[in-house]
Amino acid sequence: MAKRVILAYSGGLDTSVMVRWLTQKGYEVITYTADVGQGEELSDIPQKARSSGAVDAIVEDLKEEFAKDYCLPTLRALALYEGKYPLSASLSRPLISKKLIQYAEKFGADYIAHGSTGKGNDQVRFEVSAWALNPNIEVIAPVREWEFRSREEEVEYAIKHQIPVKITKEKPYSIDKNLWGVSIECGPIEDLLEEPPEDAFEWTVSPKKAPDQEEYVEITFEEGTPVAVNGKRYELISQLILDLNAIGGMHGVGRIDMVENRLVGIKSREVYEAPGATLLYTAYRELLSLTTDRFTFHYFLGHIPHEYAKLVYEGLWFSPLREALDAFVFTVAKCVTGSIKLKLYKGSIAVVSRSSPNSLYVEELATYSERDTFDHKAGAGFTKVFGLPLKTLARVKKSSC
Amino acid sequence: MAKRVILAYSGGLDTSVMVRWLTQKGYEVITYTADVGQGEELSDIPQKARSSGAVDAIVEDLKEEFAKDYCLPTLRALALYEGKYPLSASLSRPLISKKLIQYAEKFGADYIAHGSTGKGNDQVRFEVSAWALNPNIEVIAPVREWEFRSREEEVEYAIKHQIPVKITKEKPYSIDKNLWGVSIECGPIEDLLEEPPEDAFEWTVSPKKAPDQEEYVEITFEEGTPVAVNGKRYELISQLILDLNAIGGMHGVGRIDMVENRLVGIKSREVYEAPGATLLYTAYRELLSLTTDRFTFHYFLGHIPHEYAKLVYEGLWFSPLREALDAFVFTVAKCVTGSIKLKLYKGSIAVVSRSSPNSLYVEELATYSERDTFDHKAGAGFTKVFGLPLKTLARVKKSSC
Amino acid sequence: MAKRVILAYSGGLDTSVMVRWLTQKGYEVITYTADVGQGEELSDIPQKARSSGAVDAIVEDLKEEFAKDYCLPTLRALALYEGKYPLSASLSRPLISKKLIQYAEKFGADYIAHGSTGKGNDQVRFEVSAWALNPNIEVIAPVREWEFRSREEEVEYAIKHQIPVKITKEKPYSIDKNLWGVSIECGPIEDLLEEPPEDAFEWTVSPKKAPDQEEYVEITFEEGTPVAVNGKRYELISQLILDLNAIGGMHGVGRIDMVENRLVGIKSREVYEAPGATLLYTAYRELLSLTTDRFTFHYFLGHIPHEYAKLVYEGLWFSPLREALDAFVFTVAKCVTGSIKLKLYKGSIAVVSRSSPNSLYVEELATYSERDTFDHKAGAGFTKVFGLPLKTLARVKKSSC
Amino acid sequence: MAKRVILAYSGGLDTSVMVRWLTQKGYEVITYTADVGQGEELSDIPQKARSSGAVDAIVEDLKEEFAKDYCLPTLRALALYEGKYPLSASLSRPLISKKLIQYAEKFGADYIAHGSTGKGNDQVRFEVSAWALNPNIEVIAPVREWEFRSREEEVEYAIKHQIPVKITKEKPYSIDKNLWGVSIECGPIEDLLEEPPEDAFEWTVSPKKAPDQEEYVEITFEEGTPVAVNGKRYELISQLILDLNAIGGMHGVGRIDMVENRLVGIKSREVYEAPGATLLYTAYRELLSLTTDRFTFHYFLGHIPHEYAKLVYEGLWFSPLREALDAFVFTVAKCVTGSIKLKLYKGSIAVVSRSSPNSLYVEELATYSERDTFDHKAGAGFTKVFGLPLKTLARVKKSSC
Repeated sequence: MAKRVILAYSGGLDTSVMVRWLTQKGYEVITYTADVGQGEELSDIPQKARSSGAVDAIVEDLKEEFAKDYCLPTLRALALYEGKYPLSASLSRPLISKKLIQYAEKFGADYIAHGSTGKGNDQVRFEVSAWALNPNIEVIAPVREWEFRSREEEVEYAIKHQIPVKITKEKPYSIDKNLWGVSIECGPIEDLLEEPPEDAFEWTVSPKKAPDQEEYVEITFEEGTPVAVNGKRYELISQLILDLNAIGGMHGVGRIDMVENRLVGIKSREVYEAPGATLLYTAYRELLSLTTDRFTFHYFLGHIPHEYAKLVYEGLWFSPLREALDAFVFTVAKCVTGSIKLKLYKGSIAVVSRSSPNSLYVEELATYSERDTFDHKAGAGFTKVFGLPLKTLARVKKSSC
Repeated sequence: MAKRVILAYSGGLDTSVMVRWLTQKGYEVITYTADVGQGEELSDIPQKARSSGAVDAIVEDLKEEFAKDYCLPTLRALALYEGKYPLSASLSRPLISKKLIQYAEKFGADYIAHGSTGKGNDQVRFEVSAWALNPNIEVIAPVREWEFRSREEEVEYAIKHQIPVKITKEKPYSIDKNLWGVSIECGPIEDLLEEPPEDAFEWTVSPKKAPDQEEYVEITFEEGTPVAVNGKRYELISQLILDLNAIGGMHGVGRIDMVENRLVGIKSREVYEAPGATLLYTAYRELLSLTTDRFTFHYFLGHIPHEYAKLVYEGLWFSPLREALDAFVFTVAKCVTGSIKLKLYKGSIAVVSRSSPNSLYVEELATYSERDTFDHKAGAGFTKVFGLPLKTLARVKKSSC
Repeated sequence: MAKRVILAYSGGLDTSVMVRWLTQKGYEVITYTADVGQGEELSDIPQKARSSGAVDAIVEDLKEEFAKDYCLPTLRALALYEGKYPLSASLSRPLISKKLIQYAEKFGADYIAHGSTGKGNDQVRFEVSAWALNPNIEVIAPVREWEFRSREEEVEYAIKHQIPVKITKEKPYSIDKNLWGVSIECGPIEDLLEEPPEDAFEWTVSPKKAPDQEEYVEITFEEGTPVAVNGKRYELISQLILDLNAIGGMHGVGRIDMVENRLVGIKSREVYEAPGATLLYTAYRELLSLTTDRFTFHYFLGHIPHEYAKLVYEGLWFSPLREALDAFVFTVAKCVTGSIKLKLYKGSIAVVSRSSPNSLYVEELATYSERDTFDHKAGAGFTKVFGLPLKTLARVKKSSC
Repeated sequence: MAKRVILAYSGGLDTSVMVRWLTQKGYEVITYTADVGQGEELSDIPQKARSSGAVDAIVEDLKEEFAKDYCLPTLRALALYEGKYPLSASLSRPLISKKLIQYAEKFGADYIAHGSTGKGNDQVRFEVSAWALNPNIEVIAPVREWEFRSREEEVEYAIKHQIPVKITKEKPYSIDKNLWGVSIECGPIEDLLEEPPEDAFEWTVSPKKAPDQEEYVEITFEEGTPVAVNGKRYELISQLILDLNAIGGMHGVGRIDMVENRLVGIKSREVYEAPGATLLYTAYRELLSLTTDRFTFHYFLGHIPHEYAKLVYEGLWFSPLREALDAFVFTVAKCVTGSIKLKLYKGSIAVVSRSSPNSLYVEELATYSERDTFDHKAGAGFTKVFGLPLKTLARVKKSSC
């Protein structure tokens, strides 16, 4: 009886070759392709998969599940890997792994397969997610094992096996896209001395090409969920994000250029485009700051974003730690209701207006005008007590220490 | 014998009235005024102070000490209060307090005085710094005690006592400046629904008024110290910062608009301009990321910037904790050598080039081209071991937990 | 119309004098006394309160609410202030404050009052808790205001006003008790060079007086809640804790002697007895370690106990931060099911047996015997990838850095 | 030309077989054996090594270097892995690796070898340390590669090749010893339901066998270094630790029994004996608490011990992060001068006396007696300001959040 495998399938050269390669190794291949908002036509995917040798091909729209259950919690944690990357590709991997496992169980497959290499983060994200959901699943990563040493050898194999691949002049980049962002690497981007070429970008114009007129965007949140843009309510978070991608991209907002530490111990140069995520992070952070007391906000900043981002980046989505962090983060999010207005202009974002029924900004306390209700005398007592440890230290301190 | 007091003196209405008010209370007042790069003429300060009743007036240039011993360590810690504010005013207070104490000891004064209110952070910074250096000093904060209930009453008092204050139509803002940044509060800024008016800004043009041509700025660091801009070396860090202020300000870079938590328990809206600091933070962060291994960089991000910023903001500069954090931060800074090129354009900054003799980016490891030297097989072993805790969990997990 | 105040009342000298003192100031005093497991007879409290001048006296049994809603969450967070103190007194204050507020609202009182001084933590805990629940409540702390300068003056006042206080030879200690522990300070304990005298202890024997025979105690938890001791199930957590207090105390377990940092800036020497809490912390920690994966346990240790303890110690119980931390901690606690057996012997505790249906210890992975199922080859790949950042560093490192 | 390898050699079965096995593979083997205080006779090591086939055998006394440069910094960081394990074996690995690299460079060897398995932490510690010091070194771990599947097969091989191993009835434990502690695993210890048998322990008596008379031990530190025990000064820290091991061991102090998370993803049951380390940690912690202000101590507790311990446990000793943490920790240690007296009694330790020239305990501030100098009125102001964020929250809070 044939060994059955569910393969994460994009329709590109690598995964198309993989279908045949696995078939030749004696596997019965079912492909799985998800629409996570990458903005590509998927209607011809089943036919392509079958032409490459697949016995079945699944195509599924995951946009709303991805937006709601993966992007939204990460936004609420204000998680940015190494302070910059909003984790777009990192978030789609566990979701796809979950689906691979579900279909493997449905179709009685003992194997799943993915197209990631042995030096990237994605192998870890795919495999650890899979094992966390089904510890008995076997995972195949053909790229780590197969014999092809270059793109040319793969193309040769494809032609020989009549695999339908478009042999066009390609961009020199490796690109991953979903509604939370575009990830761009390879080619000229590997040279740290150079700016990424304009042709590397897919969703954002250069700030220099952006309109001369600024645009205001107001994002409304209810209990930590974005529900409206410029007063227009959305049923689907995924659509709200896609629309913010369009708005932000038009103004050159959301480009990120960084040298990051991969989990596998190397530094790599990555360029990201995440216009919608950038607008949402900016607005959420501002509203969180407004509706959260000092004790909570400071703990949050010190303990959540960095750790949450590291966890997501390192493929630990399906872990008790993520669930526990979400319990924290969702509790805090319950008060994050209100609207933040942003101004977009040639690559820059400014927060220009904040309002919230839960705002903890109290003008009567803050003002220096005659409406001031703060008890200034208490300030002296506070200062005296607050500084006492250092005053005591100064009293006993010896020169030697 | 008269009680002698050293008063932190700006020459403005408040501190001028304070000179007289303290004199009337029986104090002999010596004023102290520092040049911390606020860009104001201080030559007439001694005369003003004496006209207000001071027996002596000290004016001192602290720009380089401020830049080197206060701004630079804070930059190296990447400390931004609540993730946004580069701590300009927070940093000048301990330095001024130190000088007040030094002159108090030199002139046999038992008292120092400052012009801060009872509801702000500055009272804490001034007083805690002072006590940390001299636990026996007495601190007077006239604003917390005196009888004036409005600006008008102060003006009336000034006129009555022939104190030389310019009674001009003032901007409605309260402003503090030094070479690390401008702090703007009060007036229309207290309304969260509105953008800060353009007349609130001192050092930066509006992005819309910025040049149509982008500008490239290359900042060079040696062992964590900025030493050159566009290849031009600086003897004085203070001058390097002032020049970066000019460059950044011209391109509308370095405006910060936030609602922040004061130490005294209230939220306040603050607007900052810190063009030089913004360029330096952006460049330093990028170079740190390039020259620091993953373990160190992740610990750094998780444990240093937030805590260091909180400490500075809360007036704990002269504390063993700041010394210990600096020991950590300076050790890390020893490798931060190299150059970062930034592109400034209408309020936006992009990192466009990175180079360092200590760069840990190794193209032969990172590349997906044929020059790749990474051992892909090791990736499988790593993934297997790294994910084992979650795989084990999946094996034993019961539905109940 | 009389101003009404709810006074936290213990029946001791201070609070009895307070009843009269407040009455003389024109307040109508209703006393409130809670049974939080301090182990004292409260039946004569109402009569005492009325004799001192109170118009009404409330006595309430809060033992189970205290155990379940205050001690248990703190246990689950493994919160020990400065690594040692299980927060007994810190936990009872917010609960009592909550009750004072509830009765103030019920009886239309605008004031509450407590017996704490101006230099301790309890004033902060009482008052911040009260304001967090009712921002309009006025809090009176007579000790911070009144005229008595010594115990003798208070006694004189009591006699003069016929307040029924037992004028017996007292222990020189200040003592606070509840089922979570005894707090002992003052008198000989203020001398850091000396051991606390044996007469300072209430609930624990000296290890030297403990039985020569060790005792085994097995504590069983279900989803993070202690439910049985030595197989005997408890309906009430409060009773389980009281019984563990008796067992631990008999073996000299749970004495804590520390110099701690009060929130108000001073260090004080404190002695605690918390035999039940000590047994529960030891057992819970062990079971948590067994049932939690490495990622979750390490995050927990690094981010929860210290911060949670600080929050409780500093009086911030009724804060969004505590709720959010509880959401994290309770999520983790859901798997903490199982039994831990402890051995008590003359002041020492040893964990001697662990069992759990959710145990993540897998002997087949851990063993070095022939039953080993771990893939040793994967270890080499893991090591190679894990150590790559430091290997890369060694390659590029210059002597200068 | 023969490939040369420096082998970490203990003289036991495994490493003796390794000498021959490596020789047969064509390596020229030089053995390296360190005295790190394991308390074993090493004089016959060279002869044993040569009989097994080594061309040379190095034996070196590293006790003081180990104590001073490895144990002492770890003590100052109060680093305990998962809150319990003082890292004895974890600390000796990087030191031995360093020596292997030094001798490899001295003798022109391209290889080093160690006796660790593929599922333990030690392979990571040995190899990562080695690469951090010499990225070109090749590391051989015969146990991960060789053909022997059981101890019996190794013995057979040894007999066949006339390798001198004592074929005695062995304890069923795997044991590692150095002056900082004994690590015991395997055999009956793998059963979580059972107490470790008494014959597992090497350095500590059972509390039940300990003397009926308590013993007082006073440890004196100067700038964070232990310099005297009971007033007797030590030239060598290593000797001080060894003497504390004897004293503590006699009283049954320093036994640790835990289920820990290995870096390689499995949980294992480990038993440790660390009497000297336990006394030193207890004393150091107490003195640190006494001589450090609240801000520093709280940061320290929240950010240093857990992270430092994780780093050491995971083999990252030779990393910039360890150097930076040491810079922090050593700065704090400068004030840790004074004496702590401990009472040891049948497995329990109590702190009974504290003294320090840098003590920040000020009785005049702490006391509730008439010597009190604390300003109680300031307490009210402090409380008011400190609690303002929660009071404000209570004012604006809606039921919905």
